[in-house]
Amino acid sequence: MKSVSLLLACILYSSITSLSIAQHNAVDAAQAYREANGPKIIRDFATLLSLPNVASDSAGIHKNAEYISDQYRMRNIQMELLKVPGAPPIIYGRIDVPGATRTLGIYVHYDGQPVDPSRWTHPPFEPVLYSAPIPAGGNPLEMPADADRIDPEWRLYGRSAGDDKAPIVAHLAVLDAFAASNIPLTSNIVFFFDGEEEAGSPRLGDYIETFKHKIDDIDLWIFSDGPVHQSRKPQLVFGVRGVTGMELTVYGANRSLHSGHYGNWSPVPGTLLANLLASMKDATGKVLIEGFYDTVEPLGDEEREALAALPDVDPFLRESFGLVQSEEGNAPIGERLLMPSLTVRGLSSGNVGELARNVIPSTATASLGIRLVKGNDPEHMKDLVEQHIRDQGYHIVREDPDLNTRLRYARIVKITRGGGYPAARTDMNLPLAQQIFKAVQVASGDQALRVPSLGGSLPLYLFTDILQKPVVIVPIANHDNNQHAPDENLRLANLWYGIDLYAALFTMPPED
Amino acid sequence: MKSVSLLLACILYSSITSLSIAQHNAVDAAQAYREANGPKIIRDFATLLSLPNVASDSAGIHKNAEYISDQYRMRNIQMELLKVPGAPPIIYGRIDVPGATRTLGIYVHYDGQPVDPSRWTHPPFEPVLYSAPIPAGGNPLEMPADADRIDPEWRLYGRSAGDDKAPIVAHLAVLDAFAASNIPLTSNIVFFFDGEEEAGSPRLGDYIETFKHKIDDIDLWIFSDGPVHQSRKPQLVFGVRGVTGMELTVYGANRSLHSGHYGNWSPVPGTLLANLLASMKDATGKVLIEGFYDTVEPLGDEEREALAALPDVDPFLRESFGLVQSEEGNAPIGERLLMPSLTVRGLSSGNVGELARNVIPSTATASLGIRLVKGNDPEHMKDLVEQHIRDQGYHIVREDPDLNTRLRYARIVKITRGGGYPAARTDMNLPLAQQIFKAVQVASGDQALRVPSLGGSLPLYLFTDILQKPVVIVPIANHDNNQHAPDENLRLANLWYGIDLYAALFTMPPED
Repeated sequence: MKSVSLLLACILYSSITSLSIAQHNAVDAAQAYREANGPKIIRDFATLLSLPNVASDSAGIHKNAEYISDQYRMRNIQMELLKVPGAPPIIYGRIDVPGATRTLGIYVHYDGQPVDPSRWTHPPFEPVLYSAPIPAGGNPLEMPADADRIDPEWRLYGRSAGDDKAPIVAHLAVLDAFAASNIPLTSNIVFFFDGEEEAGSPRLGDYIETFKHKIDDIDLWIFSDGPVHQSRKPQLVFGVRGVTGMELTVYGANRSLHSGHYGNWSPVPGTLLANLLASMKDATGKVLIEGFYDTVEPLGDEEREALAALPDVDPFLRESFGLVQSEEGNAPIGERLLMPSLTVRGLSSGNVGELARNVIPSTATASLGIRLVKGNDPEHMKDLVEQHIRDQGYHIVREDPDLNTRLRYARIVKITRGGGYPAARTDMNLPLAQQIFKAVQVASGDQALRVPSLGGSLPLYLFTDILQKPVVIVPIANHDNNQHAPDENLRLANLWYGIDLYAALFTMPPED
Repeated sequence: MKSVSLLLACILYSSITSLSIAQHNAVDAAQAYREANGPKIIRDFATLLSLPNVASDSAGIHKNAEYISDQYRMRNIQMELLKVPGAPPIIYGRIDVPGATRTLGIYVHYDGQPVDPSRWTHPPFEPVLYSAPIPAGGNPLEMPADADRIDPEWRLYGRSAGDDKAPIVAHLAVLDAFAASNIPLTSNIVFFFDGEEEAGSPRLGDYIETFKHKIDDIDLWIFSDGPVHQSRKPQLVFGVRGVTGMELTVYGANRSLHSGHYGNWSPVPGTLLANLLASMKDATGKVLIEGFYDTVEPLGDEEREALAALPDVDPFLRESFGLVQSEEGNAPIGERLLMPSLTVRGLSSGNVGELARNVIPSTATASLGIRLVKGNDPEHMKDLVEQHIRDQGYHIVREDPDLNTRLRYARIVKITRGGGYPAARTDMNLPLAQQIFKAVQVASGDQALRVPSLGGSLPLYLFTDILQKPVVIVPIANHDNNQHAPDENLRLANLWYGIDLYAALFTMPPED
C-alpha cells in the first residue's frame, strides 16, 4: 500500500509540477509575445485611452463599452453589455474552459476620474508617450512603429492609463499570446467591467443583484486597480479602504460685500470655514472629531506580520514628493493607511491671484474626502462630522438658505453628503488566495509582497460582504501614475508585468 | 460809524445771501435740466460704462481716457492727458473762473475693478437698466427714449456704475445745465482723473510729483468715490481706511496625490492653510495677530460726536444682507470701520463641486485683504502677519520652493506681498470743509451726515500727507451698488443727487 501511495504521490507531484511548468511556459510565451509586439500593444492602448470615459458622460461611456467588448469579441469571447436603467453598462464576458474546476471573476472599471484639462500637460484624452516622467524631464515621443525598440521606463500619459484600463490591454495581449502558442486556460473566466467606479459605483449593487445568476459560480474575484508597492515590487492586496465624502459651504452676507465698507463688520466666510476645518484636524494630521477613530477594527497577527515585512518606502516617498516628514511623521505609510483619513480635497471662496478683488465673498466651500477602514460605516462617519459641525454652533441645511433661515441662524453650513462604501478585507490565509500569490510570484520572479489593505478604495464590500466571496487585488500600475490627478500615466514596465501576471493567473494549476 | 458798519453789514449780508441764493438757483437749474434730459443722461452713462476699464487692459484704459476727455473738451474745457511711462494717463482739465479766489481739485478714477464675467447676470461692460435691484426681482428695461418718464429707483448695472464713473456723468450734466442757463462757476476747477485706482494707484505719487505745478494752487480736493450712508442719506466724509493685502500659498507634496494611497500620511495643504488662517482670526472676527491693533490712532471728540450722530443702520444692513449679527455683534458699523480688518478675499485648493476629485492637492492658497486705519503702516501690518506666520513654524519663500527647500522645511509658505497705502483723515473743523458741508446740505435738503472715515480706501494720503492739502469725500453711489463685486450698479436717484451736488459745489459762495 505504501508503494501505491508513493506512486500516487509521484503521479500527483509530477502532474502538479508539469502544471506548474505549464504556468511558467505560459508566462514565457506572453513575454515573448509582448517583446515581439510591444509597439502594437502600446498603440492599441493609446487608442483605448483616447475614448473619453468620465462616468457622467453617457455617450462617451457607451462608446467605451462597445469598443472594449468588441476587442474581446474579436478574440472569440462571448460578450454582452449588462444593463440596468440609468447606469453605464457592465461589460460582461465568459470563457468556459472544459474540465475547469474553478471560476475566476475579473473585475475592471473602464470609467475614469473627472478631468480638469487646464491642469494637464496634454489633453487628457489625447494620449502621449514620454521617455520618462514629465516632472523628471521626460520628452514626448512618436508612437512606436512595429519594429521599434521599447524602453520599459517610457510612460504613456492619458486619463485611465493607470486607473483602470491597463488590465484590459493586458488581457487582450495574453489572449493573443495564448492563441498564437495554443496555450489553454486552466480556470473559467468571467469578465465583469464596471462603468462608474470613479463615480462611486452607485449601481454596482443593483447590477450584482440583477445579474447574480451570471456571477454566482465565481470562486474568487480578482481586481487590478491601484498601484504596485512604492518600492516598485508587485503586491497581492487583501483589502481596501472604504470611501465617502461631503461638501461644506458656509455663508456670510447674501452677496459679495466691499471689503472696505464692510470689512471688520461682516462675517468672512473664508475665516469661518478655516476655523471650522481647523477644529476638525490639527496641523499634524490628527482628526479631532469625536469618535473618528473609535470604530477601527484592530489588525490581526497575520496582518501585522505582513506589514512588518514591507520595505520601508517612507524615505523614498518623502524624497520623491519633496516632504520633510509625513503627516504625523512617526509611523510608516503602511500603518497610516490602515487608519481612516480626512482630506480637504478642495477649497473655494472668491478669487485668488490675478482675479482677487477687495471683496468679502458671500460663501466659502470645502470638499472633504474620507477614507474608511474595516469597522467604519460611511454614514456613521459622516454623522460624526456633522455632529462635530453642530457642536461648533452651526445650523445644517441641505440647500442654499433662504433669507428667513439666514436671519434665524448666525452660523449656517450647507452639507452635501456624498455616497461611498465601507472598507473590505479578505482572510490572508485562504487557500485560493495563496494560489493567486503563487501566480503573482511567478509573474514577478518571487518579488511580490503581501499587503493587508490598499490605501485606495474599491467597492469590494459588495463581493466580500454581500456575495460573501473572497477578493484579492493584483495591481499593475506604477505607484507614481498620478491616479485621479492631472497627467495620469502608466510606466510600460508595469504594463509588461500586467501581461505576465494575467498569463500566470489564467494558467494557475488546479488547487492542491 | 455805526450806520456805516450796519450798511456794510447789510451789503455783505445781501451779497452773501444773493450768492447763497445763486447756489440754490444753480441747483434748481441742474434739477430742471436733469428732469428734462434724464433719458439722454442715462444713455450717455451707459455708453461710458460700455468701455472696458480694468487698469491692466491698457488699450481699454486709453480708450476711456480719450473718450472722457473728449466729453469735457466738447464742453469747452481745456483737457490734456498727463502721462508717466508705463501707467494709464491722468485725465487733466482746468476751468479758470475770472475773479475766483479758490481752486477746487476734483479727483475721480476712471478705471474699474477686475471682473469675473461668469458671476455677472449680464456681461459687465454691456450696461443694462433695471426696474429695481436684481435680487429684489427687478426686470431689465429698454434704454429710455427722450420723452420717457424715469423712475429714480431704476438701476443701471455695469462695472464702474457706482465706482467711479458716476461723478463724470454728473459733471457733464451740470456743465450742460449751466451752459443752458448761463450760470457761472464760483471757483476754479481742476479735474484730475486717475486710471489705476483699483490697481492700488501705484503711480499716482509719481504723477503728483511730476505734475505738481499743475495742481499746487488747489486749496481742497474733492473725491466722490464710495457710497452714501447706508441710511441713503448723503454724507460728507473726512477720511478713508488704507489698504494692503497679501497672498499665501502653503505646500504639501510636489504633486497632487491620490487621497487613498496617501491620505493620512501626506500633509494636506487645505488643512495646513485652514489652521494657519484660523490662528490669525477667530470665528467672532477678532484678529489674533500680535500687534494688529496696537498702532491704531485713537479718535478725537469731534469724530466721536459725529459717529454718535449717525443713524443706526445695523438692523437694516443685517436684514438686507441676511445676517443675524455682525462680525462681533456688539459695536455699530461706524465704529467697526474705524478699526483695521483682515479679510479672506479668496481661497483655492484642488476643486470643489462637480470637479472635486479624490486627491490631496499639492497647494492651498488664500488671498488676504487688510484695511488700515490712521496710525497703521501698510508694510508694518504685513510684517506683523509674516511674523505671526513664522511663529506658527512656517518658512517663508517668495517663489515656489524647489526640491531642496521642500526637503529642508516641514512647513513652507509662499507670501506675495501686495502694494497699498495708509489711511488718511482731514480735520473736521476746517473752514473750507465747512463750506463743502453747506453745499452738500443744499444739494441734499439738509439731510447730510458727517462721517470721520469711510470703510473703503482711496490714496488720500498722497494729498493729505504728501501735498499737505485737505481732502473731503462727497459720495454719490447707493450703499448697495455692489462695488468691487459682480452686478455693480447705480440707483438713478443717486445719480440725480450727484448732479445736484456738483451744481452746488461748483457755485459755492466765496469763503466767509
